[in-house]
Amino acid sequence: MTQPKLVIVGSIGIDHIETPSEKKENLLGGSASYACAAASFFTPSAMVGVVGDDFPAEFLELYQKFSVDLEGLQKRKGRTFSWSGVYEENMDNRETLETVLGVFENFEPVLPESYQDATHVFLGNMAPELQLLVLEQMHDPMFVMADTMDLWINIAREKLLEVIGKVHMLTLNESEARLLTGAHNLVDAAHELLKLGPVYVLVKKGEHGSMLFSQTHTYIQPAYPLRAVQDPTGAGDCFAGALMGWLASKNACSATEIRQAMVRGSVVASFGVEAFSLDRLAALTPEEIRERTQDLLAMMSPEET
Amino acid sequence: MTQPKLVIVGSIGIDHIETPSEKKENLLGGSASYACAAASFFTPSAMVGVVGDDFPAEFLELYQKFSVDLEGLQKRKGRTFSWSGVYEENMDNRETLETVLGVFENFEPVLPESYQDATHVFLGNMAPELQLLVLEQMHDPMFVMADTMDLWINIAREKLLEVIGKVHMLTLNESEARLLTGAHNLVDAAHELLKLGPVYVLVKKGEHGSMLFSQTHTYIQPAYPLRAVQDPTGAGDCFAGALMGWLASKNACSATEIRQAMVRGSVVASFGVEAFSLDRLAALTPEEIRERTQDLLAMMSPEET
Repeated sequence: MTQPKLVIVGSIGIDHIETPSEKKENLLGGSASYACAAASFFTPSAMVGVVGDDFPAEFLELYQKFSVDLEGLQKRKGRTFSWSGVYEENMDNRETLETVLGVFENFEPVLPESYQDATHVFLGNMAPELQLLVLEQMHDPMFVMADTMDLWINIAREKLLEVIGKVHMLTLNESEARLLTGAHNLVDAAHELLKLGPVYVLVKKGEHGSMLFSQTHTYIQPAYPLRAVQDPTGAGDCFAGALMGWLASKNACSATEIRQAMVRGSVVASFGVEAFSLDRLAALTPEEIRERTQDLLAMMSPEET
Repeated sequence: MTQPKLVIVGSIGIDHIETPSEKKENLLGGSASYACAAASFFTPSAMVGVVGDDFPAEFLELYQKFSVDLEGLQKRKGRTFSWSGVYEENMDNRETLETVLGVFENFEPVLPESYQDATHVFLGNMAPELQLLVLEQMHDPMFVMADTMDLWINIAREKLLEVIGKVHMLTLNESEARLLTGAHNLVDAAHELLKLGPVYVLVKKGEHGSMLFSQTHTYIQPAYPLRAVQDPTGAGDCFAGALMGWLASKNACSATEIRQAMVRGSVVASFGVEAFSLDRLAALTPEEIRERTQDLLAMMSPEET
């Protein structure tokens, strides 16, 4: 068995989602699911997570289709984590109807030995305490990126700051950057966050793309402009997964490779939201990714080609 | 006297502006003022507009500092157009407290003969009827860009459609693009607008930059990320003025030159909002523009330099 280069830790969920045009139940979701699927177009990843005994066998088969190493996937008695949400008109906002923690509540990530020498680690959004547990089990990864959310900023700030001090890149969205720092201006907020330790801060701005900050440089990554967004769930995790998959495939963590990785992140995320769950990613081809990558780069170029 | 290459038509106003941190009265404002000042860093422009007999001599001197040709500036008995507004916390929204039309109410643009062979024309935001009057007096401009606003979409739609059918580029903001077409998706809205005649549609997204659409291509122009915005008034007009000034200086209207012009538009607009009125532009040097242009291009490049 080959040693994985990329370890992805996060939630694995069964989602029930309502958009203005459709309502779908029992969808495969969760940050780890989206990120592992997106990474797979560049590097197979190794998953760390937990599912209950209600977790459908077809979802496990889907993971295998995406070449996910499941040695770190725990199966526990009880319900799989589940999220129900409804998107408002225009998909700009969403409301959570119900969150069932299930087996995720007592989740303790345990990394198989084969995972511990991975070069790249994505700590998906979850309790900072669990993110720290993962980090403690890794030997000496080249590049660790952590995601978070407003919940942890509000209820587990100290532990979150500990995580931020230990990772190479922190990713979060605009409002979370403001909440965590108290700075309204995004550039100010990002530079406050850099003071906490990470080499990079990656701010996600949804349809407006993302921005990468280091002490000395800023990079602006536009999102691929889409005509038809069917379900925005998991877009940030697709972005992060593809980004990490690209970096791991290049065995890299340089500033230029991170920019290149963000281009791929935007491209894969843009496909991801074209359908519910992992449906679009399951049908996605490397050729489609290549084409849209060229399209996006052409849209970003100050010279028309 | 040299014939101007660039004609700019629009409002000339005396602004009273309140931001969360400051309140300033009797500022020089209006779309033509901002656009002519911004254009001047690339091409001197010729202004078409009207002021009342209360218009301060120092404002005329400021126009001269920006090398504005004032032959097309009418002076009428009465009050100069005036706008009072207050910006909400975070500068994201603003509220109009008062608009005094004054001499602008009966404005009829008359173009001096020397203006009529200009190659580039910017029709700043004003009644579409007046924009048409300007177009009728031009001989055969290479490139005409028109701006508009929700007011005209609501009360003068037919005339506005006539303008749109006659210009090379329409510029408007996101919500106006949606209002005018009924399409929520920005890509859809832009392509609906292209069907009305213009070769290009330029959608302004404020701090998120702008997007250029043609039938075959899309270009995404990020805004220069600023730490300190003091007064966002006129940012769109600075962007448009610098864009048109760049194109006129190059005697160009090619797709690549339009992208290059958008970079300059973003840069000059980013300076413009660093102070109230034209204060920052009045102190701005070509060297500062060159430096920030290089900065912005570096932030847009998928390779770190």
